[in-house]
Amino acid sequence: HYGETDEVDQVGIVTGLAWTEFGGDILTIEAIKMPGKGNMKVTGNLKDVMKESVSAANSYVKALAPKFGILPPVFDRTDVHVHVPEGATPKDGPSAGVAMVTAMVSVLTGIPVRKDIAMTGEITLRGRVLPIGGLKEKLLAALRSGIKTVLIPKENEKDLADLPENVKAGLEIIPVGHVEEVLRHALTRPLESVEWVEPVISATAVPVVEDSDGLTAH
Amino acid sequence: HYGETDEVDQVGIVTGLAWTEFGGDILTIEAIKMPGKGNMKVTGNLKDVMKESVSAANSYVKALAPKFGILPPVFDRTDVHVHVPEGATPKDGPSAGVAMVTAMVSVLTGIPVRKDIAMTGEITLRGRVLPIGGLKEKLLAALRSGIKTVLIPKENEKDLADLPENVKAGLEIIPVGHVEEVLRHALTRPLESVEWVEPVISATAVPVVEDSDGLTAH
Amino acid sequence: HYGETDEVDQVGIVTGLAWTEFGGDILTIEAIKMPGKGNMKVTGNLKDVMKESVSAANSYVKALAPKFGILPPVFDRTDVHVHVPEGATPKDGPSAGVAMVTAMVSVLTGIPVRKDIAMTGEITLRGRVLPIGGLKEKLLAALRSGIKTVLIPKENEKDLADLPENVKAGLEIIPVGHVEEVLRHALTRPLESVEWVEPVISATAVPVVEDSDGLTAH
Amino acid sequence: HYGETDEVDQVGIVTGLAWTEFGGDILTIEAIKMPGKGNMKVTGNLKDVMKESVSAANSYVKALAPKFGILPPVFDRTDVHVHVPEGATPKDGPSAGVAMVTAMVSVLTGIPVRKDIAMTGEITLRGRVLPIGGLKEKLLAALRSGIKTVLIPKENEKDLADLPENVKAGLEIIPVGHVEEVLRHALTRPLESVEWVEPVISATAVPVVEDSDGLTAH
Amino acid sequence: HYGETDEVDQVGIVTGLAWTEFGGDILTIEAIKMPGKGNMKVTGNLKDVMKESVSAANSYVKALAPKFGILPPVFDRTDVHVHVPEGATPKDGPSAGVAMVTAMVSVLTGIPVRKDIAMTGEITLRGRVLPIGGLKEKLLAALRSGIKTVLIPKENEKDLADLPENVKAGLEIIPVGHVEEVLRHALTRPLESVEWVEPVISATAVPVVEDSDGLTAH
Amino acid sequence: HYGETDEVDQVGIVTGLAWTEFGGDILTIEAIKMPGKGNMKVTGNLKDVMKESVSAANSYVKALAPKFGILPPVFDRTDVHVHVPEGATPKDGPSAGVAMVTAMVSVLTGIPVRKDIAMTGEITLRGRVLPIGGLKEKLLAALRSGIKTVLIPKENEKDLADLPENVKAGLEIIPVGHVEEVLRHALTRPLESVEWVEPVISATAVPVVEDSDGLTAH
Ligand SMILES: [Ca+2]
Ligand SMILES: [Ca+2]
Ligand SMILES: [Ca+2]
Ligand SMILES: [Ca+2]
Ligand SMILES: [Ca+2]
Ligand SMILES: [Ca+2]
Ligand SMILES: [Ca+2]
Ligand SMILES: [Ca+2]
Ligand SMILES: [Ca+2]
Ligand SMILES: [Ca+2]
Ligand SMILES: [Ca+2]
Ligand SMILES: [Ca+2]
Repeated sequence: HYGETDEVDQVGIVTGLAWTEFGGDILTIEAIKMPGKGNMKVTGNLKDVMKESVSAANSYVKALAPKFGILPPVFDRTDVHVHVPEGATPKDGPSAGVAMVTAMVSVLTGIPVRKDIAMTGEITLRGRVLPIGGLKEKLLAALRSGIKTVLIPKENEKDLADLPENVKAGLEIIPVGHVEEVLRHALTRPLESVEWVEPVISATAVPVVEDSDGLTAH
Repeated sequence: HYGETDEVDQVGIVTGLAWTEFGGDILTIEAIKMPGKGNMKVTGNLKDVMKESVSAANSYVKALAPKFGILPPVFDRTDVHVHVPEGATPKDGPSAGVAMVTAMVSVLTGIPVRKDIAMTGEITLRGRVLPIGGLKEKLLAALRSGIKTVLIPKENEKDLADLPENVKAGLEIIPVGHVEEVLRHALTRPLESVEWVEPVISATAVPVVEDSDGLTAH
Repeated sequence: HYGETDEVDQVGIVTGLAWTEFGGDILTIEAIKMPGKGNMKVTGNLKDVMKESVSAANSYVKALAPKFGILPPVFDRTDVHVHVPEGATPKDGPSAGVAMVTAMVSVLTGIPVRKDIAMTGEITLRGRVLPIGGLKEKLLAALRSGIKTVLIPKENEKDLADLPENVKAGLEIIPVGHVEEVLRHALTRPLESVEWVEPVISATAVPVVEDSDGLTAH
Repeated sequence: HYGETDEVDQVGIVTGLAWTEFGGDILTIEAIKMPGKGNMKVTGNLKDVMKESVSAANSYVKALAPKFGILPPVFDRTDVHVHVPEGATPKDGPSAGVAMVTAMVSVLTGIPVRKDIAMTGEITLRGRVLPIGGLKEKLLAALRSGIKTVLIPKENEKDLADLPENVKAGLEIIPVGHVEEVLRHALTRPLESVEWVEPVISATAVPVVEDSDGLTAH
Repeated sequence: HYGETDEVDQVGIVTGLAWTEFGGDILTIEAIKMPGKGNMKVTGNLKDVMKESVSAANSYVKALAPKFGILPPVFDRTDVHVHVPEGATPKDGPSAGVAMVTAMVSVLTGIPVRKDIAMTGEITLRGRVLPIGGLKEKLLAALRSGIKTVLIPKENEKDLADLPENVKAGLEIIPVGHVEEVLRHALTRPLESVEWVEPVISATAVPVVEDSDGLTAH
Repeated sequence: HYGETDEVDQVGIVTGLAWTEFGGDILTIEAIKMPGKGNMKVTGNLKDVMKESVSAANSYVKALAPKFGILPPVFDRTDVHVHVPEGATPKDGPSAGVAMVTAMVSVLTGIPVRKDIAMTGEITLRGRVLPIGGLKEKLLAALRSGIKTVLIPKENEKDLADLPENVKAGLEIIPVGHVEEVLRHALTRPLESVEWVEPVISATAVPVVEDSDGLTAH
């Protein structure tokens, strides 16, 4: 069935982990790019919180683009579409944040994602990885699907004590505190940063920098 | 009645299969193009999940356009309208995805679609064909409508065991795993790819590629 | 009362037929054009399905514009407004599709519509005329309103058997299978096509057409 | 109180008539123009049907602008705002259509509206005046407010028989069938048309007009 | 607490009066301007009717800008934000209209508003001041807040008879019929008008003004 | 757990204080900037009132940009994204206003925010700090999270009497009346203003300033 991972490392395809009332499941995140005008499309029956996590991931990648080897002008000429298959199933929650960042960085750099890795974790705009719920169910689903390595939020490390032994034996579980660690583990090649200097502002008015003792009330 | 297929192979017209509470039915997908500004219109009383499958199909075709023989600038000058007739009937679900892709590729390349073929299957942005529900009802509807060949998702192959003998005898049933197989079967001529090199980014800033040991925390 | 037809053939004014819980009624479809930016306005308390049928009619006319004698650039400089009077009455359903196409072609070509004709039928993007409900009630309303000729979907021909004799005697009933037949009957002059060659795509990249044995999986 | 009419003839100010569950009332329609980009603003707690009647009035005036002495380019550089005071009271219905047209023509031509006239009637895009409800209550309100002349739809003439004698004696009641009659009665000066030739379409492609025996099925 | 007025006359800050189920209260209206593209932002938990009164105020000021000393091009380069503090409290109704106009004229001219004045009244697009409800409760709130002068609609003058003597003694109550009277009382300096001639329309077509006997039916 | 503050002073990261039905909590406000077109994005499951407080903060910073050392053209080329982590938790209310202003000024000037400071207070467009609810619960949460200094609205000073002694001993509590005091305490370096002269308006029409005795009724 669909809950199997891909056979080769692919660009823009990341395995997330979901926790539903029926237990854990894997969640494929797909990102593709195409010529466009800088729009982001999101499909797959995502509800508001998951849509917001796509938006946050997008801003994080845009803000740090040169660090990831992405030239900022690409965002004006490229549309990115993020889709989470099985469109009949509603999906929600912020825990796919790290997978969203990984899918976007992969598709914009062309670096494939390791096919045998899965991940879960909310992200902040600084790239911190926040803890998630349903760790046990998510790890069981990863194991069932042939995943070898799972990235989990560092703050969920304390929940590992409750895991059955076979799960701990069958999976390499790597706690991460920052999304840059996620990218280091998940991408098949290291990222290479580019240097990018923002165009200088030139305006009709000539701004003059002056010393100021502070702000005066107005 | 309307549930009959066309008499000639047509451009942009694809027969999908629907599964409703009243049983299976055929579903005509129509795509036309016109001079425009790259907009996509969708009508025919489609609910959210089916609308999203049109959006995913559109991005899939845009991202791979040169492979299908479509020059990307056409998307800036052309509006595409996808309509599913019988506008009084609400339609939903992701299973018309492969039909949506086929209709769009047909209308943008001008290659007709085989009139005696029907298809069902959800698509992903990679072009994978995901399994669908109601296979038996859909195949019965295809048979009633004079269809000769039906493309079904490979992962639904296991459901064929439950089919009545007359359905298996009356239809050529072809399991497919990827939408490119769908296009090979459904279009009346093979696709010919074009070579397309994206315009190079030139910006005020001069980006310098430099080696990097990796990413440092910020 | 208002349910009387116009005294002269007019441009952009078409008589449709509605079927409500209170019986059949005639429905005037009005289209006007004005200098604009290619927008379509729709008013008259139309619900979603009827709004979609205006959208489908608009795309059909745009896609085949030169065939109808309409130069495509007109769509960039012209706003078209479709209104269905008696704004306090909600209207819905797809059966005014043929009337919508006729009103738009009339207003864009300047060819008047025969004042003594009425019509009903859903359209597809190929211009096929699909069957509608309430045929008997609609024809009775046409008769009461002084209509001489009614265009009905070919697939509704079988329903004519149930009609009272006086209706069959008082109306010329013409079954039609395609919207081009509708235009031939309803417009007071034949359409004259214009030749129109789409501007060629010129882009920064030089596309090279090459032979391809087909598509390879990616 | 507010239900009094203005003391001088003003530009863009028209007295309409409303019919509510509390009886008839007068309704002031205000239109102003300002430098802008061709937008229309509508305020005053108007519900959907009345908003649509503003839209229809706007298109009617745009389409016939030169006939009313209005140069079409003004619509690209001018915003028009239509407001119906007493913003706490919801208003609905199509019967203010003739007042909307009159207010817009007045503000765009600078010709004042007669202060002692009131009007009621739905409009079509051809400018026909359709009948309205609550005639008696509306005329009583007009009388109470010091109105001298009321324009009513020709098709409401039959309802005049039910009116009390004092209303017929106190008001000049003028039935009108077309909005151009409304403008003739309500504006303080006759309209003067301007000649306006639409700019010719010039496109990359050279359209060639050719004879055609008609349309062929496609 | 917050219900105190400012200590100096400020630009863009106006004291309105609200009437809620808990009695009267003062309402601070704040307007600021910033470089922008002519957008209007509105915040402070305003419901639809109060939002519409901001829109009407904005159009009134735009339409009469030169009379108030404001050059119309400023509206293309400036965003104006109107905020009503205490964002957790919903606010509605049209009675803050005069305060909205005053705040906008103040911020766009740079002329401060008298800090010891409060005002209430709906506005029309002509600038008329319409009567409001809850006069007594509003005046009591003004008195409690240290207000010296209150502008009220002329049509509310009749309600003053019911006021307690101490309110009449403690407040200067000025009835106003037009928003220009409001501006004269509330601003700390008189407005100086500027002369402004709208750019002439030049178009491809040459409009020719011709005499016309009137309008002919079409 | 997440309720710990950062280990270094960071740009764009501010600690706010929330008051929920479960008690007080700290709330991290994150602002980042990226190349863009002047758009503001807001995520983190914020409800309407908190969204409006982001909008008010944004306008306040834009209007006073040069005073804070920010060149106004930056707003046309930069998108700012404000996110409040823990996306699964809905957040509402205006009391994060001062934190929103601080985060935006920090990210646009590049000046870090003191990591051991927290703040609460609604803002007005003049920068006044309005009182908030739940002071006690918020201060307890700050103490638990290792915060050293808390900025509270001056109008909440009277509520400090009810605080337990250990809270008063463990926190430096600073009442503030204006957001500029907030910035002085929270940023690690003083702001330096820049001089900025708005481009002069030049239009086709030549505006002439003339004396005016005042406004005349129109
Ligand atoms: Ca699954
Ligand atoms: Ca999730
Ligand atoms: Ca059917
Ligand atoms: Ca389906
Ligand atoms: Ca009727
Ligand atoms: Ca219908
Ligand atoms: Ca009234
Ligand atoms: Ca009405
Ligand atoms: Ca208060
Ligand atoms: Ca109010
Ligand atoms: Ca927390
Ligand atoms: Ca809050």
